[in-house]
Parts: sequence; C-alpha cells; structure tokens
Amino acid sequence: MGNALIPWLYLVWSDAYLSGKELKILADFVENHSDLIQPNDALKAFISTENSPSRETLEEWKNQISESLKKYPETSSLFELSKHLSGNGDSISSLETDFNQLEKDLGILSAEVISRFQNSTNSITSNQESEFQSEIRSINNWLRGSTANIENEVLKLLSQDEFAYINSADLTEYREKVLNWCQILAVENLGNQAFPEEYGGKNDLLSYFAIMETLSYHDLSLVIKFGVQFGLWGMSVYSLGTKKHHDKWLKDIGTMQLPGCFAMTETAHGSNVKGLQTRATYNHDRKSFTIHTPSVHDQKEYIGNAACHGQMATVFAKLIIDDVDYGVNAFVVPIRDKNGKVLSGITIEDCGRKMGLNGVDNGKISFDQVEIPMENMLDRFASISLDGKFQSAITSDNRRFFTMLGTLVGGRIGIPRSATSALKKGITIAVQYSDKRRQFGPDDQKEEPILNYRIHQRRLFPHLAKSYAFHFALRDLTQRFIDRTESEMQEIETLAAGMKSYITWAVRDGLQECREAMGGKGYLWENRIADLKNDTEIYTTFEGDNTVLMQLVAKNRLGVFRKEFSEMKLTDKIAYAFDQAVTAVAEKNPIITRNIEDSHLLDPEFHKNAFVYREKMILESVALRIQRLIQEKLSPYDAFNVVQQHLIDAANAYVECRILESFQKHLGYFNGEVPKEINLLYQLFALETIEKHKSWYLENGYFEAVKSKAIRKMVNQLCWDLRPYAVGLTDAFGIPEKLLGAEVLLVKN
Amino acid sequence: MGNALIPWLYLVWSDAYLSGKELKILADFVENHSDLIQPNDALKAFISTENSPSRETLEEWKNQISESLKKYPETSSLFELSKHLSGNGDSISSLETDFNQLEKDLGILSAEVISRFQNSTNSITSNQESEFQSEIRSINNWLRGSTANIENEVLKLLSQDEFAYINSADLTEYREKVLNWCQILAVENLGNQAFPEEYGGKNDLLSYFAIMETLSYHDLSLVIKFGVQFGLWGMSVYSLGTKKHHDKWLKDIGTMQLPGCFAMTETAHGSNVKGLQTRATYNHDRKSFTIHTPSVHDQKEYIGNAACHGQMATVFAKLIIDDVDYGVNAFVVPIRDKNGKVLSGITIEDCGRKMGLNGVDNGKISFDQVEIPMENMLDRFASISLDGKFQSAITSDNRRFFTMLGTLVGGRIGIPRSATSALKKGITIAVQYSDKRRQFGPDDQKEEPILNYRIHQRRLFPHLAKSYAFHFALRDLTQRFIDRTESEMQEIETLAAGMKSYITWAVRDGLQECREAMGGKGYLWENRIADLKNDTEIYTTFEGDNTVLMQLVAKNRLGVFRKEFSEMKLTDKIAYAFDQAVTAVAEKNPIITRNIEDSHLLDPEFHKNAFVYREKMILESVALRIQRLIQEKLSPYDAFNVVQQHLIDAANAYVECRILESFQKHLGYFNGEVPKEINLLYQLFALETIEKHKSWYLENGYFEAVKSKAIRKMVNQLCWDLRPYAVGLTDAFGIPEKLLGAEVLLVKN
Repeated sequence: MGNALIPWLYLVWSDAYLSGKELKILADFVENHSDLIQPNDALKAFISTENSPSRETLEEWKNQISESLKKYPETSSLFELSKHLSGNGDSISSLETDFNQLEKDLGILSAEVISRFQNSTNSITSNQESEFQSEIRSINNWLRGSTANIENEVLKLLSQDEFAYINSADLTEYREKVLNWCQILAVENLGNQAFPEEYGGKNDLLSYFAIMETLSYHDLSLVIKFGVQFGLWGMSVYSLGTKKHHDKWLKDIGTMQLPGCFAMTETAHGSNVKGLQTRATYNHDRKSFTIHTPSVHDQKEYIGNAACHGQMATVFAKLIIDDVDYGVNAFVVPIRDKNGKVLSGITIEDCGRKMGLNGVDNGKISFDQVEIPMENMLDRFASISLDGKFQSAITSDNRRFFTMLGTLVGGRIGIPRSATSALKKGITIAVQYSDKRRQFGPDDQKEEPILNYRIHQRRLFPHLAKSYAFHFALRDLTQRFIDRTESEMQEIETLAAGMKSYITWAVRDGLQECREAMGGKGYLWENRIADLKNDTEIYTTFEGDNTVLMQLVAKNRLGVFRKEFSEMKLTDKIAYAFDQAVTAVAEKNPIITRNIEDSHLLDPEFHKNAFVYREKMILESVALRIQRLIQEKLSPYDAFNVVQQHLIDAANAYVECRILESFQKHLGYFNGEVPKEINLLYQLFALETIEKHKSWYLENGYFEAVKSKAIRKMVNQLCWDLRPYAVGLTDAFGIPEKLLGAEVLLVKN
Repeated sequence: MGNALIPWLYLVWSDAYLSGKELKILADFVENHSDLIQPNDALKAFISTENSPSRETLEEWKNQISESLKKYPETSSLFELSKHLSGNGDSISSLETDFNQLEKDLGILSAEVISRFQNSTNSITSNQESEFQSEIRSINNWLRGSTANIENEVLKLLSQDEFAYINSADLTEYREKVLNWCQILAVENLGNQAFPEEYGGKNDLLSYFAIMETLSYHDLSLVIKFGVQFGLWGMSVYSLGTKKHHDKWLKDIGTMQLPGCFAMTETAHGSNVKGLQTRATYNHDRKSFTIHTPSVHDQKEYIGNAACHGQMATVFAKLIIDDVDYGVNAFVVPIRDKNGKVLSGITIEDCGRKMGLNGVDNGKISFDQVEIPMENMLDRFASISLDGKFQSAITSDNRRFFTMLGTLVGGRIGIPRSATSALKKGITIAVQYSDKRRQFGPDDQKEEPILNYRIHQRRLFPHLAKSYAFHFALRDLTQRFIDRTESEMQEIETLAAGMKSYITWAVRDGLQECREAMGGKGYLWENRIADLKNDTEIYTTFEGDNTVLMQLVAKNRLGVFRKEFSEMKLTDKIAYAFDQAVTAVAEKNPIITRNIEDSHLLDPEFHKNAFVYREKMILESVALRIQRLIQEKLSPYDAFNVVQQHLIDAANAYVECRILESFQKHLGYFNGEVPKEINLLYQLFALETIEKHKSWYLENGYFEAVKSKAIRKMVNQLCWDLRPYAVGLTDAFGIPEKLLGAEVLLVKN
C-alpha cells in the first residue's frame, strides 16, 4: 500500500529537471488525497526536500517499476503503473483524473516516462538501415553517359600513389605539388583534349569538360590550376588568336611547357570588366604595343599561375592608337623567362594565403611600359593594319568585347560542373559517415546511426537530390554549348551564367550542411570537408560574381520576354490570354490549390506547372514593376536598383525550371522503369524546391495553407523513404575511396 | 530626312545582344513604312548584315543622338528621339504606335536606352553616401555599458605590437604565439577575473565575459585557448572541485603556470555525453583511481591544450567502485610534467590541421591504467568516504551529472558573445569596404560605391542589425546568469543553449554574406574574413551541437508549457481561452492581417505580438502533434523523431522572442529619444525576422499576401534608409583599426 507513489518519487528525485517545486506539488497531491493514498513512512519521508533517497533506494524503485512493466507490458499511463504498484489497485482507481492531472502539473509525458523503462521498445527509427541495391551499376552508367571511358581513365590516374593528397600548409610545397600534378595530366594528354589535333589535341570539348568534372573529385587547387592553364590561358589563345598564335604556342600550352595566365581582372575592376584601365598603346614606328598599368588600382589581381609559374599571360587592355581608345582587346605578354625569372618592366606580387585553393599561385601583375611585338595582339576579332589602322569586322567596341567574352563561356560551364563534383564528394562523405556514426537511441543500450534522425535526413538528402539534378542539367548545357549555332549563343550564355551562379550557391549551402552534419569530424582537415568548403567558397565569385551574373540573366530574360510578347500576333496574344485563363482554371482553382493527395504532390506534371508558373509570373511582374517605376520618372538605373532582389528571384526561377526539365527528361533513360530510389530522389528535388518558395506560392494564391503544409510533410516523408538508399546513391557516383580520402570512412567499426 | 533610323541602327550595331535577327525586324519595319521613312542611301546600306558601319560612322551616330538629347532633354521615348533626328519630324509623326511597337519587337526599353546617352542623369542611387553622425559616441556608450573600462583596457593591450596578427601556416609557430599571447593576458590578470580573490582573481564574472567578448575582435584561436584554460579547465576545477583543489591549483591556473585541459568529449560520444566510456576505477587498497580508456572509440578527442601545452586535465569518466557504476564524474589527471614530457600511461595524438582555430592545439588523449590519488576526484557533488563508499547529496547519477554540467553553462554564454564579436568585426570590414569599393554606375564616367546597391544592402544590413540585437540579448543573459537563483537555473540553461545555437548559426550566415559581399578581397587571408569564417565555423558544433541543443531547448519548453497550462486554475483557463479569442479579434481580423500602413508595420507592439504569437502557436502545435502521434501508438522516441524539425522551429521562435524583448528593452536607454539610425536598425531586425517566417504567418492566417508583400517592401526600404548610417553604426562598435586588421581598409583612395 502506498507504493502508488513510487513512480512519482522516482521521477522527482532522478530527473535532472524536476526539483523542489515539483516535490511540493507531489506533497500537496498526497495531502489532498490522504484518504486514499497512504504512503508508508519509508516513502513518506521522501516527500520533502529534507530527505533524499539513497542510491540504493532509487535503484530499488527503478527495479520495481521495471518489474511491473514487464508483468503488465500494456501499461500506458503513469496512473496505471501506480495502480499496478500499489498492489491494492482498487483504492486509487477512482483517482485516474487526479493522477492524470498530477502528470500534467509536473509537466510529464506519461508515455515518454514509461518508455524509458521499457528497454525493449520496438522503434521504427531503429529499423532504418542501409539496404543493398542492385541498381547501383545501372545508375552509375546513367550518370556517366558517353564520357564513361575518359572518366575512368582519369579516376585510375588519380588513384595512383603520386596523387595522394598532401597536407601542406607550406605554400611553396603545395604549389609545386599541384604544378607537378598538372604536368602529369599534360603528359597524359588530358589538358589539351579540346585543342585541334594538329596541336596535339583531340578536338574533344566534351571530354575536356568530363575530365575537369572528374578531376574535381580530387584536390580542387589542381582543378583550378588545370583550368587556368588549359581552359583560360589555352582557350584564350585558341579562341581569340589566329593561326600564327596557335602555331607558336598552342602545342606548348597543351604539354604544359608554356605555363601561362589569363590576366583580365584588375584591382579596381572585377565585375565591371568594361572599365579595365591597363593600356596597350600602339607604336607606329616600331610596330609594337606598350603595355602599361596606369596606377596601383589597375594592377591585374588574383591572376592564377602568376605568382610562381606563368611565363606568358593573355592580358586584357584598352587598345590605344594615336590617342584613340579602341576598347578592350587581348594581348599575349611574356612575363617570365624559361628559368622563371620575372622579365624587366613586370612586377609580380604574390596574393599570399587565401581562404582556399592555396595550391594555386595567384598574383598581382603590373606593367611598366612593357613593349611587345604587334603580332602578340590576339587578332581574331580585331587587328592593326600594316599602315597602323585599327580594323575589325565588329565595329562596335562594346559588341566586340562581349563577343570575345562569349568565346570564353566554357569557364562558366566548367565551374558549376566542378562544384557539383565537390558536392557529390562532400555528400558521399557526410552520408556514409552518418550511416556509421551512432548517437543516442531509444534506450541506453543501443545507439542509432545519426542518419536515422529526421532532421539529419532533412539536412543532407535534399543536397543529394540536387547533386543528381545539377549533374544532368550541366550535361545538357554542355551538349548545347558544343552543338551551338550562332543564334543560340545568347541563350546559352544566359543559361551558363545562371547555372554557374545557382549551382555554386547551392553547393556552398550543401557543403555547409555536410560540415555540420559531421560535427567535429567535419572540422578536421583529414576528412576533407574543410578543403571542399574553402576551395569552392570562391566559386560564387570568380568567373563572374553570382549576384552580378544573376542580374544579367534576368535582364536578358526581360528582353526575351518583351520580344516574345511583342512578336506574338494578335491571335497569339489572345491565345496567351486564354492560356493564362486556362492556368487559372486548371491550376489555380480551389480543387488544385487545396489538393493534397499524394499522387498529385508527386506528379511530375504538377511540379512542371508549378515551376513554370513561378518562372513566368516573376518575370512578368518584374517587367511591369520596372515599367511602372520608369513611368514614375525614376531613371532606369535607379529602377533596376529598386528591383534588384526581384531580378535575382526571376533568374533563380528561370534556372530552376531548366534544371527540372533536364532531370525529368533524363528519367526517360530508364524506359518507364525508373528505379524507386531515383524516383524518390527526383520527387525530393522537385518538391523541396517548391517548398523553398512556398511563401511565394502562398502569396500568389497558387496554393493554400493546407497544401503548403502537405508539401512540407511530403518532403519529410520522402527523406524518410530515401534513408535506406542514401548510401547506395552516393556509391553510384563511383568516387574511389582514395579520392574521397576521408580518414573517418577508413576506420573500421 | 531618314535620320529617324539613326538611333535604331546604332542600337542594332552597337549592342552586344542585338544582331542579325533584329536587323531583319528593322528592315521589315522600314519596308512597311517606306512611304514615310526614306533613309538616305548611306543609312540604307546598313539595314542588312552584309554591311557594317565603320567605327567612325557609329561614333558619328552616337554624337548626333547625344546632341539631340542635349537639345531636347525631355525626350522620353525612342520615337521622340527619332522625330527630333529626322528633322522633318512631321512626316513620321503618325508612326508613334508603330515605333513603339518596333521598340517592343526589339526587346528594348526606351528609357533605358535614352539614359545611356544622357550622362548627366540625376540618379537617387548616386546620391547615397555615408553621413557624419554625432551619435556614434553615445551609441558606443550604450553598447559598452558598465564594462567599458575593462573593455578599453583589453583593446589597448591588444593594440600593442606584440599582438600583431601572424600569418602562420606553421602549426607550431602559430600555437606558440597563441600560448604566448595567453601568457601575457594571464600576467595582466585578465584570465582569472572570475576566480575568488584569494586565488588572485577579482570574483568578477561580468568582466570575464566582457574580456572574452573583447578578445574576440582579435585572433579567435587566442579566445578559444583562453576559454579552454580559464573557462573550461579553470572553472571546472573551481565549480566541480572543493577548497583542497582550489588551494592546490587555482592560482597557477590563473597565472597560466599550470596549463590544462577539459577532457569530456570522446570519439564515440560527443552529444550523448552520458554515454562516455572512460573509466575511473577506485582502488580501495591504495586509495586511488585507475583512469582507463577501454577502446580506441573512447579516446578523449578534440581536447584543446592537449596536443602541446596542457599539464593536467579535468577528465570526465564513469566512476566504478567494486564493479558498480556510479555515473560520470570528474577527475584531475596529470598528463605532462613541467617540461612538457607526456607522462607514462598517457598517449596523446595531435588532431592536426583543422578548418580553423589552428592556433589551438587540439589532441586526442588515451589513458592506459593511469593511477591518480583519490584527492584528485573533483568532489563538490560526489566523493568517496574514508571507508571507500560513494557519497553524494544528489543520489541520482543522472541528476548529479546534469547538475555538474549546469555549473559549466557559462561556456554557452561565452561562445555566442565571442561569435557576436566576430560578426561585428566581419560586418565592419564588409560595410566599410563596400562604402569605398566602386563598380558600375549610371554612366561610364562615374562608378558607385557598391553599398549603394539594394541587393548589397539587403545582404549586409540585416546582419548589422542582428549584431546589435544579439549584443543586448547576450548582455541580458549574462546578467541573469550572474544574478541567478537556484529556481531560475533551468530557464537560464535553456536560454543559454538556445542563444548559443541561434546566434552561432546566424553569425555563420552573416560572415558568409560578408565574404561574398567583398568578392575576391574577402577570399584573401589579409582581409581577415577567411579566418573569421573558418574559426567560427565550429562554434555551431562545440559546447553542444546546435541541432541537439535546440531539441533540448524545445523539450524544455514543452515541459514548461505543459506545467503552465496545467497550473492554471479553471478561471485562468477561461482567461487563457479568452486571451486567444482576443488575439484572434485583435491580431487576426482582416483589418490587421491586411494592415499595410507604415505606422503599423514599424510599431514595436506589432512586432512583439507577431513574435509572441509565433512562439506560442508553434509550441502548442508541436505539443499537440506529439500527443497525437503517441495516441497513434508511436513510441515517444519515434514521435520526437517525427517532429524534430518542428521542435527546432519552436526553439528558434522562443529565442527570437527573447532577443526582440531585449532589444526593445534596451531602447529605453535613450529615454524616448532613440537616435534615428538605431530605430531603423531595430525596425530592420524585427521586420526582417518576421519576413523570414512569412510562409508560417501566411499558413497560419496571421497575415495575408498583401501584408507579406508590404513587409518585404518595408524591409528593403529600411535597408535603403539605413545606408547613410551604416558605416557610422560599425564605427560605433569601437573596434580599433589594428584589430580589424584588414589590408583593404588601409589602402587610401
């Protein structure tokens, strides 16, 4: 008798968060029901802060509770437990309401307390584990596509001992190692794949991109050094120069005999590249150019390969002939001799330690009246005639410069492909570690893989889905770039700028989650997330600052929108209005805006419609807003400033639509038999993206609160359903263990 | 005659994005209106891709356009321009509609094109500049409060040459420098401020926190080394030990004569610290403990001061007496002799390079049957009697351990204070650089400070506002911690865990924006953002993983919620229901949910109501959800897993409410004369936080789309209005230039 109090006393005395105040509540309770609850003196003594039960007493209580729960496994409330323990249950039977109230007064959740004693709880969380998947090889084939062979070749090479990661904080050592790696790749003919065959290449741009993507599973300093040498330096000579330049330099660039730089950005001019101040003044008498840096603000800055290894540089400078400025053109300027000695008139300063990419020797270059022969002008788009006159088929300086930049758009495809590889590698390490790492559990005996926790899934899996989505979007973009016609160029440039920005931002966020998901292990250099994060950090800035690029994307889309709408014939305009009306009926009626059926939420048509609707509406609304602001007498410059955030939203929506389209299209590979894990992955990508914009959809009445909530729930569910396949889906990337290079994956449990 | 075409031809031929297709449109247009438009042959020739105008022709056209616009500055459309240029304007007067259509067909925005030629455009964007502010000193006083003196003392010390930042990638050199810095601080009596006076301290915890906060304007490795020595090692001896320990060690800890460690985390147990496996087995015969590491998974890991300098460590281990496990207790274990030689039985492994904080020597420690005298048990909460029996006033092992941890809660206050300093420093560098850095502008002549761009303001200013908000929230938390009574402890612990998580996450995001806002300059080590980011990266993990802490916060709030609701008397419950109804009437009626008046949106009452409503509703809904899931027979463990995301939302809402309250309260300092820039800052903090959660407010009917849009607009407007004061508001932090240490701020324009 009186043992009914045991669970309550045990709780109050053992729980770190119940104390004096709670004992008072308990004492009052006993007082109020002293007719029915009559604790024996032993127990009574503990209903006061004066007297704490001994460890042995607590142990004894715990045992009694456990025994009772073993005997009555169906016990579901503390009241029932009390009844069982009291022995003469009947005497407190009438107190059910009061006991339940006591529970609430103490802030306790019955079921939670009871489950603490039932170590055998069957938990659905604990049942989650990685499943063997037969589909991994087929998924890998799907990912690799036609470049599987060259990718395997690169992976094999990188897996050799000479490519072992080095942990060098010593800049010199690290840079020499990266140079050496680059030389090995050159020897293997991997750098010059895109060059014409007569210069040692294979005229194979598709492979070049695949190589760069695959190299990005390794050290990213290597990738950037490689990109600077073969992509920027090499391709600038190739695309902006003519045969005489190719004959002279292209072969040596491809073999890395002639390391070089791409010297565009200046200290005071990065994004506004039209404003470059370096000058190339033509000397009629000596048929030469004088390259000069007018002030310290006009130094070339952040130039890769400049601090140590570059022997020549493609220098972008304003061409001046007889005091007339002919806009920015490109010139090849020697900066070091074969022995690495900096040439006269050239001053090079090391950019020093950076947040990442420390294996790349970035430097500042300034020119003090450096003379170069006239042949060194890269003259595909403009040249100087024999009588010293400027000549160009593209007479507008502005237009010529942007045409030149257009030939270099490949960089904006290579960077997001490299970033996507970094994300794949990071997510592989984080997911595989989380599948092994155990922490907490349904009871003290067994701890769970942290990948079983919903919040952990929610943090990592959307990025896993994105790495697949980005992969295909970039493959499609690459192919379009390779197959391009002149008239598509503008769209491809826009798409490349948009993908570069959208994806590098997304990768930044994804790697951040990887780091945090791995806790302290993610912070140690030996697990590689630190370098992945720090090296890709600058991807959002170089090859065009993301924020600036996204505004260009939006401005381009605005132009297209104006033209398209204008080009429509009247009948088309009526059709357009009709279309809008149909959308309103088909997608914006209450049946759809409140439709929360699974089949609807998972329907690719719904995803497509939602993405397209958002893309169209934002573009239309920003166009109208600009128009209105200008009507209100704001200058266009100010008007565009006012809507900057809106422009970026428009650009994002545009890119997201294209990514979704690519992902949907590539599901066709499976001929209607899409593996379930790939379907889940696709659905997660689509729905999580919609969820991210839910406030926009709510504001625009595209769905109602009930649907918004259903989408969130579904996203969580998809993460849960993906859990068993997550490790397999990272295996499918096919990144060799040596390249993952994370110590924490090597520890055997 | 015919000159009407000049602007159109100029556009088509000069713009990088108009080309062949556009020429065709133009040709058709001329064709269709050949009766009225009769270009002279010279112009006619260029309406075809065959023939491009020379540079001189383009220049000539441009001049004609500019001249015309000078003559007719009110020209507002391309049609008007054409009319002016045609000379015989009348002949095309009837074509206004057609010309406007042509403009659309070409995807051109008239006003934009015209403004390109009007270099004198008066732009409101260009008029933005930093204003001199008289309030800076008073704002600085407001921020510093009662700890101004000690803060100034620290700043003065840190500004001395011996504290110059070192750029050392060499771990040894960096670690020795940081040790040396710590020793200087110790000599200046800055480390032991919180210790009792008899041990050299000042018994002044308030100053200790202010010192840590101020040190965080300098190298963060120094802060963490300092925190490990004086906060973790020192305070563990002080708070968990008794007089014999204080007498023996506290003075030497304060002078840094006795460097030590805080060895809690193990490889396999971080967040689930109750699961620690290191053992301390009592030996009756020798009255000693044997400290032992059972397996490689149980090594102490990430331990600061361990790899090089620590001579002793507070080791957390399961106490075993006669095979009985008495839970985790703390023991002081010598690990090195005075000469730095590692003692027998101890194995220390260096954690090596980390993503940041490389000036701190983290290591792994394992113990191979290391014997220590029984006095080395820190016995404030538990001890061994002379006859070898365990004794403790807190008989529950669980409760005792959490009580021990509770004494160390100061770390969870110090960390977010340090993080907030890092954010202040980062935002100061980014804002001040952006005020100087110019890029693009209304015309080619003059470029704008990038801080004039809306998107740039939008990225940086909310974080400026947060750094103020966090500052006061943490000052209030510190004061509560210092003034605490036993009964408040649980709430303070919850608040500290919540603030630590919320603020370190926000600082992570803020520093990310600072890096990106500074472009390439932000990536160079010399500008300090890189270190700020990398050093604070682990703040979200150490002193308790944020995700885990936030769940504890939410669980605690759930307990409080249950109790509070239960404790209400019936009349109170009716009042509560009535309150809810009043809220519905007062805040959720259409007049309010659609209220978009400025005075309402900027009203602190509105902010308070919105924050509180969200806090309450989320807590209530997660409580109901858990209840329902358990009723549906989910185990509590599974139920909590299902709602993990929801729990974190609840914790975030709780913390945000407290931060808002602090900020509002501290505005009282100005006695109703709040400086306008501080008001803007406060409003931005409040409204941007509400905006961040707009989808929640929309889903819950707290506001409608129209209000949601008005809030976004207002947030943008507040950023714009803050622009002139942003630099001043960073100056008000009072961080000396030497500590900012960013090269880019030293360059004189």
